[in-house]
Amino acid sequence: MTTQVTSSPKALVTQTAEREIRIERIFNASRERVWNALTDPTLVAQWWGRGNKLVIERMDVRRGGHWRFVEHAEDGTYGFEGRFREVKPLERIEQTFEWDGEPGHVSVDTTTLEDLGDGRTKLVSVSLFHTEEDLKGMVQAGMEQGINQSYAALDRLLVLPH
Amino acid sequence: MTTQVTSSPKALVTQTAEREIRIERIFNASRERVWNALTDPTLVAQWWGRGNKLVIERMDVRRGGHWRFVEHAEDGTYGFEGRFREVKPLERIEQTFEWDGEPGHVSVDTTTLEDLGDGRTKLVSVSLFHTEEDLKGMVQAGMEQGINQSYAALDRLLVLPH
Repeated sequence: MTTQVTSSPKALVTQTAEREIRIERIFNASRERVWNALTDPTLVAQWWGRGNKLVIERMDVRRGGHWRFVEHAEDGTYGFEGRFREVKPLERIEQTFEWDGEPGHVSVDTTTLEDLGDGRTKLVSVSLFHTEEDLKGMVQAGMEQGINQSYAALDRLLVLPH
Repeated sequence: MTTQVTSSPKALVTQTAEREIRIERIFNASRERVWNALTDPTLVAQWWGRGNKLVIERMDVRRGGHWRFVEHAEDGTYGFEGRFREVKPLERIEQTFEWDGEPGHVSVDTTTLEDLGDGRTKLVSVSLFHTEEDLKGMVQAGMEQGINQSYAALDRLLVLPH
């Protein structure tokens, strides 16, 4: 099948404060479709791990619920986990995030979706790291590239018939 | 039996930065005994929950290991959890901490033990909260009273014959 997007746009990634990063990305899909792709484990498994196999060990999308994903990449497995702080359907998810490689180094990620009214949806994700060093570590670990690979996989999922 | 301490000393609790609290407390026991009381689940269960029944659901004391405790108090149950960032035997434990009542609001607690050379041990615990608001919330929730109650229970454990 043909896709609506010929090339994957890059996410706009900016450091907005000493320990804060803001990511902005537009998807060619309704807010409801993007929301489902963020919160339905069957869909999350298809894009979150940069297109690699992703095992969802826990994903309880409600305040206080836990999540834990394991990505199986060519060079090894990568575990990620956290907890949901707030879930406002279609609009907003606030959750913690940590990578097994730096256990206990936790960021708080707030993702909001805005319906652009023309079949497109703007996703904004703000990550507040615990320290400036934690932010630098995540940037150096390839955060931006990983996000763009995952969002490209999400683009491919969103153009599938539904 | 009689105890060496006739009244429980208060921990010295100070706010050392916008989002940091430092706790200092001396125990009448060797560093090894205090270390064991902090890291052996059978012992932790006897003091950590302010003297209340404490169920230790997880406690894997090593870098990346998780912990989860549930305190059964008269007015209800209180769950706490986190993950170990660093464990240096007898000297230092760095771990995350969150309370189920404010899920995803995580502090990083660094506890160090100093052998005072006279059979006493100084414990210093520094908590770095994610935000100033998180610190205020924990203080208002009765952090200091809870800690003093737990340390009093730890005093009682440390004077038992071993």
